[in-house]
Amino acid sequence: MLVVMGQPATREQIEHVIAEIERHGAQAHSIPGDSRVAIGVTNHHGRISRDQLQALPGVSTIVPITRPFKLASRETRQARTVIQIGDVRIGGDEVVVIAGPCAIESADQAMTIAHAVRQAGARIYRGGAYKPRTSPYSFQGLGRPGLEILARVRRETGLVTISEAVDNESLDLVAEYCDIVQIGARNMQNFSLLTHAGRTRKPVMLKRGMSATIEEWLLAAEYIMMEGNHQVILCERGVRTFAQHTRNTLDLSAVPTVRWISHLPVVVDPSHGTGRREKVTPLARAGVAVGADGIMVEVHHKPEEALSDGEQALTPEMFDQLMWELGIIVQALGRKIEGPAVGYQLRRGLGVTGVFSS
Amino acid sequence: MLVVMGQPATREQIEHVIAEIERHGAQAHSIPGDSRVAIGVTNHHGRISRDQLQALPGVSTIVPITRPFKLASRETRQARTVIQIGDVRIGGDEVVVIAGPCAIESADQAMTIAHAVRQAGARIYRGGAYKPRTSPYSFQGLGRPGLEILARVRRETGLVTISEAVDNESLDLVAEYCDIVQIGARNMQNFSLLTHAGRTRKPVMLKRGMSATIEEWLLAAEYIMMEGNHQVILCERGVRTFAQHTRNTLDLSAVPTVRWISHLPVVVDPSHGTGRREKVTPLARAGVAVGADGIMVEVHHKPEEALSDGEQALTPEMFDQLMWELGIIVQALGRKIEGPAVGYQLRRGLGVTGVFSS
Amino acid sequence: MLVVMGQPATREQIEHVIAEIERHGAQAHSIPGDSRVAIGVTNHHGRISRDQLQALPGVSTIVPITRPFKLASRETRQARTVIQIGDVRIGGDEVVVIAGPCAIESADQAMTIAHAVRQAGARIYRGGAYKPRTSPYSFQGLGRPGLEILARVRRETGLVTISEAVDNESLDLVAEYCDIVQIGARNMQNFSLLTHAGRTRKPVMLKRGMSATIEEWLLAAEYIMMEGNHQVILCERGVRTFAQHTRNTLDLSAVPTVRWISHLPVVVDPSHGTGRREKVTPLARAGVAVGADGIMVEVHHKPEEALSDGEQALTPEMFDQLMWELGIIVQALGRKIEGPAVGYQLRRGLGVTGVFSS
Amino acid sequence: MLVVMGQPATREQIEHVIAEIERHGAQAHSIPGDSRVAIGVTNHHGRISRDQLQALPGVSTIVPITRPFKLASRETRQARTVIQIGDVRIGGDEVVVIAGPCAIESADQAMTIAHAVRQAGARIYRGGAYKPRTSPYSFQGLGRPGLEILARVRRETGLVTISEAVDNESLDLVAEYCDIVQIGARNMQNFSLLTHAGRTRKPVMLKRGMSATIEEWLLAAEYIMMEGNHQVILCERGVRTFAQHTRNTLDLSAVPTVRWISHLPVVVDPSHGTGRREKVTPLARAGVAVGADGIMVEVHHKPEEALSDGEQALTPEMFDQLMWELGIIVQALGRKIEGPAVGYQLRRGLGVTGVFSS
Repeated sequence: MLVVMGQPATREQIEHVIAEIERHGAQAHSIPGDSRVAIGVTNHHGRISRDQLQALPGVSTIVPITRPFKLASRETRQARTVIQIGDVRIGGDEVVVIAGPCAIESADQAMTIAHAVRQAGARIYRGGAYKPRTSPYSFQGLGRPGLEILARVRRETGLVTISEAVDNESLDLVAEYCDIVQIGARNMQNFSLLTHAGRTRKPVMLKRGMSATIEEWLLAAEYIMMEGNHQVILCERGVRTFAQHTRNTLDLSAVPTVRWISHLPVVVDPSHGTGRREKVTPLARAGVAVGADGIMVEVHHKPEEALSDGEQALTPEMFDQLMWELGIIVQALGRKIEGPAVGYQLRRGLGVTGVFSS
Repeated sequence: MLVVMGQPATREQIEHVIAEIERHGAQAHSIPGDSRVAIGVTNHHGRISRDQLQALPGVSTIVPITRPFKLASRETRQARTVIQIGDVRIGGDEVVVIAGPCAIESADQAMTIAHAVRQAGARIYRGGAYKPRTSPYSFQGLGRPGLEILARVRRETGLVTISEAVDNESLDLVAEYCDIVQIGARNMQNFSLLTHAGRTRKPVMLKRGMSATIEEWLLAAEYIMMEGNHQVILCERGVRTFAQHTRNTLDLSAVPTVRWISHLPVVVDPSHGTGRREKVTPLARAGVAVGADGIMVEVHHKPEEALSDGEQALTPEMFDQLMWELGIIVQALGRKIEGPAVGYQLRRGLGVTGVFSS
Repeated sequence: MLVVMGQPATREQIEHVIAEIERHGAQAHSIPGDSRVAIGVTNHHGRISRDQLQALPGVSTIVPITRPFKLASRETRQARTVIQIGDVRIGGDEVVVIAGPCAIESADQAMTIAHAVRQAGARIYRGGAYKPRTSPYSFQGLGRPGLEILARVRRETGLVTISEAVDNESLDLVAEYCDIVQIGARNMQNFSLLTHAGRTRKPVMLKRGMSATIEEWLLAAEYIMMEGNHQVILCERGVRTFAQHTRNTLDLSAVPTVRWISHLPVVVDPSHGTGRREKVTPLARAGVAVGADGIMVEVHHKPEEALSDGEQALTPEMFDQLMWELGIIVQALGRKIEGPAVGYQLRRGLGVTGVFSS
Repeated sequence: MLVVMGQPATREQIEHVIAEIERHGAQAHSIPGDSRVAIGVTNHHGRISRDQLQALPGVSTIVPITRPFKLASRETRQARTVIQIGDVRIGGDEVVVIAGPCAIESADQAMTIAHAVRQAGARIYRGGAYKPRTSPYSFQGLGRPGLEILARVRRETGLVTISEAVDNESLDLVAEYCDIVQIGARNMQNFSLLTHAGRTRKPVMLKRGMSATIEEWLLAAEYIMMEGNHQVILCERGVRTFAQHTRNTLDLSAVPTVRWISHLPVVVDPSHGTGRREKVTPLARAGVAVGADGIMVEVHHKPEEALSDGEQALTPEMFDQLMWELGIIVQALGRKIEGPAVGYQLRRGLGVTGVFSS
């Protein structure tokens, strides 16, 4: 930790800061600047906090030197985390595609979409039973009956399933019925829910908050991991900025950043990241190219009748096209992907190129 | 609701949209533009949603005409809501000052600060027992013992008390021990918690989320009000922007905006809004001048030993000065404020002016 | 300057950084952290730059200790800068109000508004002759004839005048016809224009860029001051954020921040800061309360016929009310303001209070 | 255009708006909502502006239906614009790579880098002679001698050249010595410079402003095109957001958005977009995958001695690797790219895959 003193800091203030550091059993190292003074703090082992130092008279800023997260950090664990569920491995060579409707609306709707996405190469099926909606007047999800439908999808298709939990009660139910528990962007700093998620034995997908820094996101993962559950998948889904041409601004630079400082797998969600169907495929391609371990997209066979987020859902036909385009890029990158390989070889043999969706 | 068609929309797409609107029992009104077409939708009464229309082929954007929140809107209730707790009235003539430490650390700390802020004119005492902290390694609050200390503060000083709830369990406890339940910025869209807060009989202070629009904030209030609890106090506490010279960017324009479209009282928190002690007083003055119904500030008698947020806490002496400055402005504005009036008259008689903190 | 090494930095990388620092004639001070190493750099006197250090292998971040701006800094000049033009002093005890139309449209329009705002207490008259408009299809200003009208306003009313320059040619003309040259937000980092402005002898009002940090803003002022023109007035006019309820987000915390680190006067523009007439007055009050040296507002006698920005223009009647409200707050604060004092005393004697615009 | 009236709008206000619309010779179409009224405006042909309508009493918002830019719009020109300079075609099948140092520092530096990037497959050489720097104390570029070096690069290597202009004078010189004139992010709304650029006969690369919307960006292009110069290349280089893990947030969703609504070619600059060398290659891959017509990157043979932006410069070795990786993706996408094809085939024959930079 480094304490930077304000320019008009007095000799007494500097000495007081040094005395406080030493009083807490840490060591102080004074570094004179051209017009300011900085004081390095070592061996503090948490005995004196950033907040306490910041509050001392004359102090301008505190610069942390060590990262605040530990379990999520590559400094703690060099090897990349691979999460295995059945024969699906997230974080390894394969680029895993997660697909399904925004919300489970009925058994028919869910099964129709499940068969379509499975055939096209999706490995994991998504579908919300508990929907966090901005307005209380919007469709809030089917609840437990929705989870029962998800269990049937798993049984009948063999797909791994994921669904969102919005509080402790729904988390227990999602963990009972599904393979992966999702924590949504709005709950990324619902620390009570994160702690509860840390106590389940199921993998957790943690979406980045709408205005969360990378550090805050990894500290949210740390809350889960501290409880003993190290199976955390991160999901970049766009952040809120001044830009209004997409629903959120998909921050693809988060992927190499997270891969650089953490060992956790990271997935990209271009459906929420853009909010507009016609931009999902180009951004999914970009997500794979930037190095994501997976892509999560929303698919609906009748988007115009969807009870939520229909404007960002791909049709099954568009999803087929997406899988084909991802397949080409993934193979070029030397990674693996389910499904579209055969079609890819065929069409490539036929010289089909340059027909990507814009 | 207005449906704006894309410029290359075909005649068929336009007719399909009109047919869909009418199929749901609403009326469609076509408005040709110079190069585009828009379609007004009336009498829909929720029978066809924005999402459904957005998903139709050829549709560019949907423009809502009616506000999405109802109970929180001045269109529903013209008279301003005044929330009365004992002899404190929030939302009326008086500008109410809420003060106290970030976190309850001990009975001694809490009582010392309580006596100091009460004497200076604070009407409500704040203090966290459950602290939502970015890092799991930071002090998380005393929990129930902290609430017991708050109960003692109320008993011994007569101050109204407020404390934050972070989940359903802590909300029940806060409602039992305190007068007002606070929902923090990170939980503004924790809809499960909002619904639970709507079922308590205690007033709820709802802080604006770090990147929440005004509409999202009022829809969060709507979740609480829908359960029958109409005693909601809004609190602007700064939003997240590119600007880094303050911890958050205090958006004071939110105050007249909210007062224009809603009847709920609105309070400003310059402590979180700036994150730096020396900026709290100027922004508190501005908060009163812009028309807020109250100001919430953090006070600590030993900021450099505070277990959280010490760098933004005022000392009791700084709080005295703040109350004096607010008193002058509030009286000039023709509103009322507790406490500093006498000192104000005295000092004014002595010609003390122009000594405001920068 | 402090160099923070990445956690996996090797011994060789650390030694290489130290060697580079010393090779450039500066001194290196190694500070071991718990898991990282930081290296303090002193006596560098610009011999090695931040960029050069950042580029060395193993380096994580560079933390500057000394502020990058000098002439604009209070570290260079303790006394506040007061800019005198005729009998108007900006940066002293008086809160100066600048008012007038967005654009000069005709002599009649300009004179009508000038008489109205002068009578109400404005000291400086604003009006654009060169308008930087987002669209090339919008009204671009009258150009030189507009400046001639401004010269007539000055002659006939005695008001000090300000107008915006958009390139070197218009800057020379504005400096010839007006008392103060304005550089707009979009040109805040037009360094060629800043340098040219530094060579005029007229005071310059420098508006904050739409996404400029405080540091970038003061460095822009530094470009002007380096050429010998130290008469710079800063103007906060709102920044761009995700929030859409106002045209920009007025960042009032910039005022105490700038006053803390710089000696230059700072003015608040709530017209551009909010973009909506009904929010101008509350935010103007807040601007005065937060400590601004002046307020700049747009006034038009027929807003609905204004050729630009009519939706944010006050009518002369609204401006009268604004001046009255500001007068009350300014006097309470112990500062001075022109004009409304008499009316204020009269109305106060009559017990008129509590009738502020919301 | 659609005028949405405020909820408390009176019958008189509504009639006044309709009368004003008709008085200007346009047609008004009233659309009653559940609780508000909207008025469609047709056949206005610019006779009544958005600003004028917005300023009328009772008006809440104005919703434009037709896009404000014309020449840059696909509604005006369906075919994509291809800009040909020598044998380089920007906007066609080929993905064009632009590479070179941030600033021209010396003939040696420039030529060394030019030979390296040409060999690796770059088609266009970049290098700044006029550098817009945040601080007046930073290296400002060599000026005209820098342009003479660029002319030599072109002569000796055959590379097309691009350099930034910062004012009218430098623009004339850049147009004289180079093939493409660049207008930087800070000058995107320097309308005087845009107009001047419209009068040159050279292609112009227009970088997106740090907080520019897509509409503002295209309107800036419109300023250039209105003067008769239709050879505009857009460049996404990151926008300013709360996120601090990269220097800017690269908004790759801008690429499909711009391609959807405009016919102009669009290039991605991951060097400024991330500001960190190790993130340039992953984001360049993503830029190609999302559909950009080109990539612009900074390369320096001795980044640690670069006079500006060394921390984001690739070494020639890293640039080789980048070209190889881009080559693989571009070929998979069915587009063309210069240079790395042979190496790609060779290595592919050798089974080299999966060795992408993270």
